Amino acid sequence: MVPVSALAAAASDAGLVRAALSGRVTALRARTSALAAPLSDEDMGAQTMADVSPAKWHLAHTSWFWETFLLEPHLPGYAAFDPRFAYLFNSYYEALGARQPRAARGHITRPGAAHVRAYRAHVDIALARFLEVCGEDVLAGLAPLIETGIAHEEQHQELLLTDIKHVLSVNPFNEAYSHATPPPAVGEDGPDWLEYAGGLDRFGAGEDGFSFDNEGPAHTAWLPPFALASRCVTNAAYAEFIADRGYETPSLWLSDGWARIQEQNRQAPFYWRGAPGEWREFTLHGERDIDPAAPVSHLDYFEASAFAEWTGYRLPEEREWELAARQSNPASARAMAPDGWLHPAQADQCSLFGGVWQWTRSAYAPYPGYRAQPGAIGEYNGKFMCGQFVLKGGSALTPPGHVRASYRNFFPPAAQWQMTGLRLARDA
Amino acid sequence: MVPVSALAAAASDAGLVRAALSGRVTALRARTSALAAPLSDEDMGAQTMADVSPAKWHLAHTSWFWETFLLEPHLPGYAAFDPRFAYLFNSYYEALGARQPRAARGHITRPGAAHVRAYRAHVDIALARFLEVCGEDVLAGLAPLIETGIAHEEQHQELLLTDIKHVLSVNPFNEAYSHATPPPAVGEDGPDWLEYAGGLDRFGAGEDGFSFDNEGPAHTAWLPPFALASRCVTNAAYAEFIADRGYETPSLWLSDGWARIQEQNRQAPFYWRGAPGEWREFTLHGERDIDPAAPVSHLDYFEASAFAEWTGYRLPEEREWELAARQSNPASARAMAPDGWLHPAQADQCSLFGGVWQWTRSAYAPYPGYRAQPGAIGEYNGKFMCGQFVLKGGSALTPPGHVRASYRNFFPPAAQWQMTGLRLARDA
Amino acid sequence: MVPVSALAAAASDAGLVRAALSGRVTALRARTSALAAPLSDEDMGAQTMADVSPAKWHLAHTSWFWETFLLEPHLPGYAAFDPRFAYLFNSYYEALGARQPRAARGHITRPGAAHVRAYRAHVDIALARFLEVCGEDVLAGLAPLIETGIAHEEQHQELLLTDIKHVLSVNPFNEAYSHATPPPAVGEDGPDWLEYAGGLDRFGAGEDGFSFDNEGPAHTAWLPPFALASRCVTNAAYAEFIADRGYETPSLWLSDGWARIQEQNRQAPFYWRGAPGEWREFTLHGERDIDPAAPVSHLDYFEASAFAEWTGYRLPEEREWELAARQSNPASARAMAPDGWLHPAQADQCSLFGGVWQWTRSAYAPYPGYRAQPGAIGEYNGKFMCGQFVLKGGSALTPPGHVRASYRNFFPPAAQWQMTGLRLARDA
Amino acid sequence: MVPVSALAAAASDAGLVRAALSGRVTALRARTSALAAPLSDEDMGAQTMADVSPAKWHLAHTSWFWETFLLEPHLPGYAAFDPRFAYLFNSYYEALGARQPRAARGHITRPGAAHVRAYRAHVDIALARFLEVCGEDVLAGLAPLIETGIAHEEQHQELLLTDIKHVLSVNPFNEAYSHATPPPAVGEDGPDWLEYAGGLDRFGAGEDGFSFDNEGPAHTAWLPPFALASRCVTNAAYAEFIADRGYETPSLWLSDGWARIQEQNRQAPFYWRGAPGEWREFTLHGERDIDPAAPVSHLDYFEASAFAEWTGYRLPEEREWELAARQSNPASARAMAPDGWLHPAQADQCSLFGGVWQWTRSAYAPYPGYRAQPGAIGEYNGKFMCGQFVLKGGSALTPPGHVRASYRNFFPPAAQWQMTGLRLARDA
Repeated sequence: MVPVSALAAAASDAGLVRAALSGRVTALRARTSALAAPLSDEDMGAQTMADVSPAKWHLAHTSWFWETFLLEPHLPGYAAFDPRFAYLFNSYYEALGARQPRAARGHITRPGAAHVRAYRAHVDIALARFLEVCGEDVLAGLAPLIETGIAHEEQHQELLLTDIKHVLSVNPFNEAYSHATPPPAVGEDGPDWLEYAGGLDRFGAGEDGFSFDNEGPAHTAWLPPFALASRCVTNAAYAEFIADRGYETPSLWLSDGWARIQEQNRQAPFYWRGAPGEWREFTLHGERDIDPAAPVSHLDYFEASAFAEWTGYRLPEEREWELAARQSNPASARAMAPDGWLHPAQADQCSLFGGVWQWTRSAYAPYPGYRAQPGAIGEYNGKFMCGQFVLKGGSALTPPGHVRASYRNFFPPAAQWQMTGLRLARDA
Repeated sequence: MVPVSALAAAASDAGLVRAALSGRVTALRARTSALAAPLSDEDMGAQTMADVSPAKWHLAHTSWFWETFLLEPHLPGYAAFDPRFAYLFNSYYEALGARQPRAARGHITRPGAAHVRAYRAHVDIALARFLEVCGEDVLAGLAPLIETGIAHEEQHQELLLTDIKHVLSVNPFNEAYSHATPPPAVGEDGPDWLEYAGGLDRFGAGEDGFSFDNEGPAHTAWLPPFALASRCVTNAAYAEFIADRGYETPSLWLSDGWARIQEQNRQAPFYWRGAPGEWREFTLHGERDIDPAAPVSHLDYFEASAFAEWTGYRLPEEREWELAARQSNPASARAMAPDGWLHPAQADQCSLFGGVWQWTRSAYAPYPGYRAQPGAIGEYNGKFMCGQFVLKGGSALTPPGHVRASYRNFFPPAAQWQMTGLRLARDA
Repeated sequence: MVPVSALAAAASDAGLVRAALSGRVTALRARTSALAAPLSDEDMGAQTMADVSPAKWHLAHTSWFWETFLLEPHLPGYAAFDPRFAYLFNSYYEALGARQPRAARGHITRPGAAHVRAYRAHVDIALARFLEVCGEDVLAGLAPLIETGIAHEEQHQELLLTDIKHVLSVNPFNEAYSHATPPPAVGEDGPDWLEYAGGLDRFGAGEDGFSFDNEGPAHTAWLPPFALASRCVTNAAYAEFIADRGYETPSLWLSDGWARIQEQNRQAPFYWRGAPGEWREFTLHGERDIDPAAPVSHLDYFEASAFAEWTGYRLPEEREWELAARQSNPASARAMAPDGWLHPAQADQCSLFGGVWQWTRSAYAPYPGYRAQPGAIGEYNGKFMCGQFVLKGGSALTPPGHVRASYRNFFPPAAQWQMTGLRLARDA
Repeated sequence: MVPVSALAAAASDAGLVRAALSGRVTALRARTSALAAPLSDEDMGAQTMADVSPAKWHLAHTSWFWETFLLEPHLPGYAAFDPRFAYLFNSYYEALGARQPRAARGHITRPGAAHVRAYRAHVDIALARFLEVCGEDVLAGLAPLIETGIAHEEQHQELLLTDIKHVLSVNPFNEAYSHATPPPAVGEDGPDWLEYAGGLDRFGAGEDGFSFDNEGPAHTAWLPPFALASRCVTNAAYAEFIADRGYETPSLWLSDGWARIQEQNRQAPFYWRGAPGEWREFTLHGERDIDPAAPVSHLDYFEASAFAEWTGYRLPEEREWELAARQSNPASARAMAPDGWLHPAQADQCSLFGGVWQWTRSAYAPYPGYRAQPGAIGEYNGKFMCGQFVLKGGSALTPPGHVRASYRNFFPPAAQWQMTGLRLARDA
């Protein structure tokens, strides 16, 4: 990925910026639509738990985002496709007024999926027009906003897959979202430890290249020496934890986590089915035997923390992970997974990225000097800095080019439906 | 309606019975499908509150009912369309095994609506075949079961409309299910009182003609003299109750009802919108001004009871209503409503039936001598005889020919989404 | 019990009425206080579930009742003990203003128990003074209100015991409320059937003697022939139902009842502990082996109904029970239980009364012609006529002289903490 | 306070250590009992919300703690006062077995308060005996455990006051816990800013003197330059925030906080009553006018965060506070409040400590290198490191000598019943 805003600052040829943006936006929009292609209109409307948004809602919301933040303010003469959509497809922006309650997104049978596809086309056309007619200076000034729009829609591409996985999983037909070829089996090795000296260093995203506001500002912090496991915890290791009565041993668990697994009578990760010795899991490719050598996924924070406690190691701090990941290429993360494979593949020893989002023990909090932007866009990240944990690395569902070392994903500790796992850390 | 089972007992020409049954089943099945025709596949999948079942589910469940109770046991060689449907489309029959949780019927994105339509066609064909090939004696013996299947599907025709009304009502598009012509305006008169002497009489359904098991056995009971209003309570009268601070006067309410309206901050019937003086209501024909002379609908039992208390009168006993209704023709009930009009029309002075289901103050309980039938079919009615009230009369959504004087509908006192109103009674 | 209001109508000597009332009120008030004597101040303050009221609250509420309905309106110069008590000790009278939320009665640490005892003394003295100075005519006119006050406090005497049983039962010390001598063991016989011809008869309380408003008016009704078991269902019979997998057989249960026992994973009556073959139960005399020949108690309506279904019989109608009980003497009910024994004793073959409140299958509804009294006192019974079932007979905790054949107790079907059991009925 | 374990390491005279420990333990135990003295036995038993523990429970639990961790393992021949207390008074130690559910602590009417006082006396005597007879070496080794016991009971002294405040606050009598003399009025000044250069520094508790395990290990961290307000936010400033529509301005609030205040319709801090311009608050000295110049208290994290956002400043990081507090004397914090005054007094310009616990924006997390201790005592702090925020400084209810700069208190963001406020911070 060429960071466009950097280009914007430096390039002598503004046309290159325009072309790059156009190409990326076109590909982005097409990919979102393509992700919905295997789904029926009915699949696209269902909300099977409060955390899940219907696929149709993702298709519409990502169009509303462009319409609201870019087209309406900046494309002269642009008319909103349907003024009622401002209520239906606003996610959580208080500054933009009332909206459909989150838990009632599944009630939106109208507009239908076809109507939403027309909405997407309307916005696609207007985006193309905007990128064609917008003046050079204006375009350069709007590049960060456009990059945010791209990154935002990429996040929803991943959420669409995460959410439709849940929809298919609760359906007794047990059907697959796609029928890709599974990756080849690889031998399972114990992890190596990668050691780091720590010390005083700079962290967070700087000025070059796009990043979300929560990744900055760049700042100094001190790290003691530490080590990270060279790969994520595997299904085999996690099955061993279960077999060793991990879910029955309170001393391994955070207090809130122990209360939850007792209350819900949990014995295994969210999508695991069956019983010890014969675990299977529901995937976007249907129900399958677990792959012992692949990273365990769909753990909540409590499970990740209990597993780490059981090993005697711990979860990483987010800055430990960031420091280590500077030497990794995000693109390498998915190298071992065949194209179209939407499940964590066997762990790559060479990259911190990929496979599963990795829980850190860092609460999601503002970096020193952070201030949310003014206006509605300032609600993007800052107002969620309470009660969540930072995850690093990206998953098998993350769009190519979306992540980087400074990227901070965040979820509440009880979230299970995301593709979340862990990498062990220790003091060195 | 010609009561077929009576015919079966008497007719010299068994072919007539066969033809009558065939004709009725064919028309029934076609009507159910036709009711779903105005809906998109997405409309048909949504479950907007736990009480609501998706339209698709009604289409499938009514097919499953025929398949399970008639075709599988009695049509040689019949193969279930899809064995997984037994789990998905069993409503509440414990004797038939596990089933999709009621509140998760909206999760069934698969099978899709097209798949369910194919299921209906499969069952339709098999039903036709069964009615063609079934031996005369067998057919005569199964006639009561077939009548139950017809009545069952008719109940779901009404529920489908009730439920889709809720789905459309929570959609901000405020769209109509149909665009029929409204009935002509009629002057509004206060009700007359119809007086009855009571005494010792017979109640409940006897042996002639089809009835549900909960309508019988026929039995003797004593009624003191009483009077019933000649028509149902109108919107105008109910608006007056509201204007007289009915919702703020605890002495009018049953204790549980008062607690509910306080907790939910209720001020008007379920589908009313706006404010005193300018009430509108959501109907299957879209949002409309209330018609002052039409029966008020979508009251729960508590509202009906509080309104009656406010007038100084009371709700009827179910047997009072039944006795009075013997002189009414159910078919006359809808005489004033144009064809296709799916909302209570201005009240007919000549019939106890029609417009709205009328709450009685009789708890839904077994009649003397009642025993549920053995087997799964025995779960149809008996196991719900606790915590519900009997309603009489039928509504603007009730299929033609479905009701009779002995018919007992029943809902919990807090139910609001059904087309429920009231007729006043008093001691004479 | 001499019905005082009847006496009032007839007696030539008004002083006798005054003396009778004085004697009864004095004994009543003393008995309530005596029931609290075995309890510590802390026992008297606890509310261990929302249905339970603290003993202290019962002591105060019964005093507030006299103060509010008798002393303030009718004793010249009477000053309320503490005006704040009107908020704290009003139970549910909307007409009398705001009050402490029911579920927060356990928060009332102040006034303390000693303060409440002083309140009782204050009211006792005022009651005595009232009964001494009140003019003859006034007294005769107020006799029905005084009888209501007596019956009301008797109801709370039973509730105090019911509630303190729950408080003690959740305490791990497992301590007894009292150490009375258990009744002697009696041989266990199967029940005989008492047959009744039914027909047209009068039911409900008439004008002679005190009764609650919900027991009237007297009215005509028709009953088919029926039979009642000569005694209540025993612990032995109920244990057999459990052993026969009663709690695992859905066809025996009402739908709501089956949902509840599944959700709560219930296997036995509320206060039973242990396991099949070695059942024990918590009683006001501590934890004890169940007595096979004593009536089973603390069943909810669903358990009573399922048991009856299992036997092939049914629960009685309330009027069946009333008709049969006219030949029973309420006083005989407790004949076999030694004085001070607060648990159902082995069943008396000679009386319909006693031991346990007996669930009927009659919903609690107004009798024909019933109207609640105007004013706050009208809230006593009428506003609860929804969602509850009638129970007949009285229990081992019911004060002597409190019940009669027309008496209608009522509880929601899920209530378990009351001393409730059943007597079987059948069509004859 | 003389750090006893330091003494233990250094003193030539071991008798001095013994005497110091004995004196402190005796005073500690007497103070806990004295705090309960103004309460009736009934006050001591009530649990008015799930977070609140009854005063009696605090008295017993602190005794159980000594019994379980010190006396049973280390005092030869010690017999537990009552073996049933292990179930009743274990707070949350999974390693020590089952226990009374937290929300049911108010059900413990038995043992009564007198019984619990006897328990305290039993443990007091045994503690005295232990401190007399324990060998020198053993005593030195156990000094850290004894210090933990002291600090633990001091924490419960504060909780007892916090909890009884809630009990009294929900009582309509509005009575005071104590009638101390309020502090003199002081002029209200805006805060000064205290500036700090930050940089690389050491944080957390080291080896000298007692500290909880969560305060260590001492570690290096980097802080950018910052400033802290010289005093806590006052009631006057907070009232201004309310008047400026702070509770109606979503952009000031964290997402979870906005959802909560909407849902609960909140307009002011937890114990405030009345309306703008005439605010009063419930205190342990009864309901009083708010003191404009005193620190605002009983804010939850969301309120503290929204207030800071409104000012344009922010909440401190916990290490900023610690660094600043090193120059403050904890003992000075309460200098301006008269003895026995249990409410935040007007702010002292000279100390970071006192008045209110101050929310930091630091999530409660392990310090680098932290490991919980093995065994039950390891459950003291570590298992709560999720979903809570660190608070610094101590409150008007904190026992003298209990806090220090490294002290980390922690509560969930929604906690309101603790004496919590805030001090503003900014980047320098």
